[in-house]
Parts: sequence; C-alpha cells; structure tokens
Amino acid sequence: MPDTDRTRVAPIAVDAMGGDHAPTEIVAGAVLAVREHGISIVLVGAPRQLHEALATHDATTEIPIVRAEEALEMNEGALASLRRPRSSIAVACHLLRRGDVCAVVSAGSTAGIVTTGRLRLRGQPGVLRPALAVALPTVPHRTVLLDAGANAEVKPEMLVQFAHLGAAYAETGLDIEHPRTGLLTIGSEAEKGNKLAKRAHELLSSAPGLDFAGNVEGNDLLTGVVDVVVTDGFTGNVALKTMEGAVRYAFGELRSSIEEGRLAKLGALLQRGRIDGLRHRLDPEAHGGAVLLGLNGTVVIAHGSSKAKGIAAACVLATSLAAGGTVARIGERIAATPRPHRLW
Amino acid sequence: MPDTDRTRVAPIAVDAMGGDHAPTEIVAGAVLAVREHGISIVLVGAPRQLHEALATHDATTEIPIVRAEEALEMNEGALASLRRPRSSIAVACHLLRRGDVCAVVSAGSTAGIVTTGRLRLRGQPGVLRPALAVALPTVPHRTVLLDAGANAEVKPEMLVQFAHLGAAYAETGLDIEHPRTGLLTIGSEAEKGNKLAKRAHELLSSAPGLDFAGNVEGNDLLTGVVDVVVTDGFTGNVALKTMEGAVRYAFGELRSSIEEGRLAKLGALLQRGRIDGLRHRLDPEAHGGAVLLGLNGTVVIAHGSSKAKGIAAACVLATSLAAGGTVARIGERIAATPRPHRLW
Repeated sequence: MPDTDRTRVAPIAVDAMGGDHAPTEIVAGAVLAVREHGISIVLVGAPRQLHEALATHDATTEIPIVRAEEALEMNEGALASLRRPRSSIAVACHLLRRGDVCAVVSAGSTAGIVTTGRLRLRGQPGVLRPALAVALPTVPHRTVLLDAGANAEVKPEMLVQFAHLGAAYAETGLDIEHPRTGLLTIGSEAEKGNKLAKRAHELLSSAPGLDFAGNVEGNDLLTGVVDVVVTDGFTGNVALKTMEGAVRYAFGELRSSIEEGRLAKLGALLQRGRIDGLRHRLDPEAHGGAVLLGLNGTVVIAHGSSKAKGIAAACVLATSLAAGGTVARIGERIAATPRPHRLW
Repeated sequence: MPDTDRTRVAPIAVDAMGGDHAPTEIVAGAVLAVREHGISIVLVGAPRQLHEALATHDATTEIPIVRAEEALEMNEGALASLRRPRSSIAVACHLLRRGDVCAVVSAGSTAGIVTTGRLRLRGQPGVLRPALAVALPTVPHRTVLLDAGANAEVKPEMLVQFAHLGAAYAETGLDIEHPRTGLLTIGSEAEKGNKLAKRAHELLSSAPGLDFAGNVEGNDLLTGVVDVVVTDGFTGNVALKTMEGAVRYAFGELRSSIEEGRLAKLGALLQRGRIDGLRHRLDPEAHGGAVLLGLNGTVVIAHGSSKAKGIAAACVLATSLAAGGTVARIGERIAATPRPHRLW
C-alpha cells in the first residue's frame, strides 16, 4: 500500500446525515472504518447528534466533526440540493473541493448527491456528464457497469466518455490493466438495439484509446465477459435493480424450498453458513456502493439502507479510489481523446 | 376446461425448422405435446426430415406435416422473412391466418418471427404495434412483462396499448380478474425516468379501462407487486436477460459454494432435488416462452435453445391462450379505448 501515507494525510468526509439509518449507523460505520481499516474520517452533520452518537462508541476524540446545518431528506429530489446550500452533503463536497479531504462518502438520496456533486465539485475538464458506476461481483475481476442512474437521457457521445470513465475505474480501483468495454444492448450484432445503442456502437468502434469488445446483453452482466459495460442511466439503473431483485428472489425461493423439505432440513443446517456467505457477497452493501465518476473529486454513494458495515465498505472503496488516483486517470483519458462537437 | 373441444378441432402449427435444436428436438416436443398433453399439432417444415424425425418416435401417423420449402436461420435478421416467403414460420402464420390452426409455436429467431408475424397476420385493428410478452414466475400470479423485445423504439402511446395487451393476457391466460399495471422506470415518483417514461406515466394515469398502479422498478419485477409491467422493448429485453443471467449466476455461485464445502457436501446431497426443482421453475424454458400479442392470431416464441420439454410447454401455453380467447379480448380492450392521434 504505497499510498497509505497520503490517505492518512487527507481523510474521507462522511456525510453523517444521509441514509435511511442516519446518523446512528453512519457514525457506527465511520467508527468501524477508523478502527478496523485504519481510515482517517471526518463526519459532516449536526454536531450535537453526531457527538452523542460518537459517545456511544467512546469515539468522540477519534473522529472530528464538521458542522452542517441542514440535511437532504431521502425522498427529496434533485432540486433540494439547490434549496439547501448548507446541507451535509454540500459541506462534504466543499471540503473535497478545498482539498481538506480526499473523498466523500454518502448514503443519502442518489439524485441529491449527483446534483450537489455536480454543483459543488463541477465536472472534470472535457467531461460531458458525470456517471454513476457500480462494480458487479464477477470473477476473476469485477465488472464496472455505468451509467447506473445519474443520466436518464444521454447522447451517444456520452457513452464513449462513460467507457473512458469506467476504464479509469477498472485500472485504478480494480487493478485491471487493459480493460475491455462492452455496450449493453439487445443483440450481439452491431445493428441491434435502439437508435442510441446503434450510434454508440459506431462511435465506440472507432474510438481511440478504448478496447471495445462490441455489444453485450443483459445475461452477460455477471459473466465477466468484459471489464466495463456502458449504457444510459435509465437502462443501467433498471438492469442493476433487476439484478438485485433477481438474486434476492433466487435466495428467497431457495429458502422456502429448504423450509418445505423434510430430509432437506438437515442439509440446510449443514449449508447455512455457505449460503449466508454467498448472499453476503452478492449483497450490494458489501460492494461499498456506487461511484460518481467525472467530477473533480471522488464521491462514493452507499446504498440508502446501508448499516455500519456498508458504510465502512464505502469508506474502504473511497480510500482505494482516491489512493489509486482515479480522478487523475480520468483526466488523462479524456484529455487524450478528441473533444466531441458541441452537443447542445 | 370448457374449450377442450375447440382446441381439439383447430390444431397448433409448430414451426419445426426454427430453433437451435431444430428439427429433432422440435419434433420430440411436438410428440410430447400430443402424447402427454393431448394437444393436436401440425408440424411445418421439410417433409423428409420431419418424417424421419417422427419415425424415431413411431409418430408418423400421429402428427401431420405441412410442407415448407425454406427456413429462417437463427442468425438471420428481420429482413430474411421478406426474402423467404415460403419459410416454415411464414407457412405456419399462413395456416393461422386461414383458420386452419388456432396458434403458432416457433423457437426460431425472435426478429424473424416478429417480422413474419406482422407481415402475415397483420396487427389487430387499432393496435399500433404488436408486443412480446413474457410471464415472470411470481406468486401467487405470474407477472406479465412487455414489451420484451419486439420494439426497440416506442412512443408513449404504445405503452398504454401494451398495458391493454398485457392485461388481456393476464385475464385470459393467467386467470387474473382485475390486472394491475405498473410502468417500469427508475423511481417510484411520477417524474422519475426518461422522457418516454414520464410521458407514458401521464397517459397511463388517465387511461380508461386500466388499473394503473404507478411506477415500478427493476427490483419489483419478481415480487408480484403488479400483474402487468409495461416498458419499451429495449429496456424490457435488457431486464429480462439480466434477470435470467442473475438467476443463473446465483445458482452457479451456489454450486461452487457447495462444492467448496466439506461438511456441506452431505447437505448438498440431501438438498440437490429441491435446488434442481427450483432451478427448473426459474428456467425460461419451463414457462413456455414469450407471446407476440396484438396480431390476428396467437404466436408463441419458445426460447431458441428449447429442447423437447420447452417446445411442449410452449404448445401448452399456446393452447391455453387460444382457448382463453386472448386475441378477442385484446380486440375488445382496444376497441373500448380512444384511438390515439396519428403518430407518424
């Protein structure tokens, strides 16, 4: 870990007020990240609440608090971030912009974090739109899926940039040397898909600096056939949630099958540990969350329902991306590509 | 089964030349459908090949053959159906149009079947576009997802019609009395989604004759929260294939977990039957396949990789839809709705 010193110098700002279980579980997660992973943390939020929460862990001297007057509610839309300039996520982004922290972690509403991040951190030079990336649990390497929901409407040119953002994530966060990119669509042939996918296929095929492997389909997402999968934020979000739902369904069905069985019960007891382990590995919380790529700073969005372990995992992910220099790598990749024509 | 007589009178046309395992497994599936389910079948394809295949089952006298000179290849696109007017799927659709059969079953290329079906059977009066519907294995009722891939680009008005097509399927094929429809998008609030989803939400909210339950997300597809889920064919196809891939992944991981375990092996042995049963239930082949709705006749598209059991299941599904009067019910529903303005 050559970058340990650096990550020790610049802590991670954790938005303590975002998430279904804020601030209690967020604070607990921060304590876990400090004590178990040696990560340096700053908590952002309502000081009294956070002090009390830290006190229950005897951690008031371990983790500093930065005051934020307000918080975005989980059900507030993107506009709330404009109405609340002193929200905890806005203050966290401000710290990142100033260089006081090396990354931001929040379990708040995705729309609110995306809007606040774009407003406070601004897009990196040349980046048309930041995108939300998720690392799927494939083997031997994870597969980066993006956009997972930041942009419901995109232009084909943005998908080419998403490929670069995802490749930078794969290189710096997942140690994949020459990431291969696939385009999510509904058939392997170049002409399959909607207008967006067809045009994106053309652009990706001739894009310099990318190893484009062609089209992939929904059933390829978890096979590890490519390292990066690009799509628009609408399709990506539907695919990601469908995947989560399908895995949950499969395990739910498995459980009822086991409970129905007679002789099978013994087998179930013998196997429970394995199945629990697997379920944990497929659990989105265990992955650390989604990463907002293309901004002037690393922002990790943990699942809204994250508890302490999920928050700690998000802090580990944020540390590794900051230490790996993901933002700088994106800058290099985008600078090396021809700037697209004005799109709007 | 009040309609048994009727289904006995009009047989089902099975396209014997479509599918990865055509004609051997298709013929085997037809034999299974005749012998185990009492379904009357006509095989369409190359007579000599089909006669030979039937002979291996001693079934040459049980199932009549209708000659088709040509066949669509699995990898041929939609245009092939125009180039091959005497393909087995074209002849099967012709028989359906003439009323010689009550439904068509094919495991051929989806694009080819959709194009041929539209050309030969024509859309029902007032139907803007036929859609591909799949019944997902939810409990207590299956959930109809459409469009699963027939139309990569749609207009919002088409999603309203898809809701009627899906509701007719739910009523006639799944015995659901008052089907509730959801719109697949990326958030529960009305304003979430891309332009198509937002406009479709508005139209669905005020559409007469529909029980619109609002937006659903990818993780709702397998919870049975609604009876019908509408979306465009691009998103629907990605979601469907993602679901299949995720379930396959979950079971694959489960298997390796089991194989890794020591003590767990005994448990695995005790449970294998249950897990196999569950896997079968989630297997798309077991569902009978997708249904092309909105044409003047019932067309069931079995999975391209279908073997005998999958083909037989498709024949059972086709029989129940034909007997249930799905086409007539769609006609009633579309006739009762205001005709949309000219869209192109």
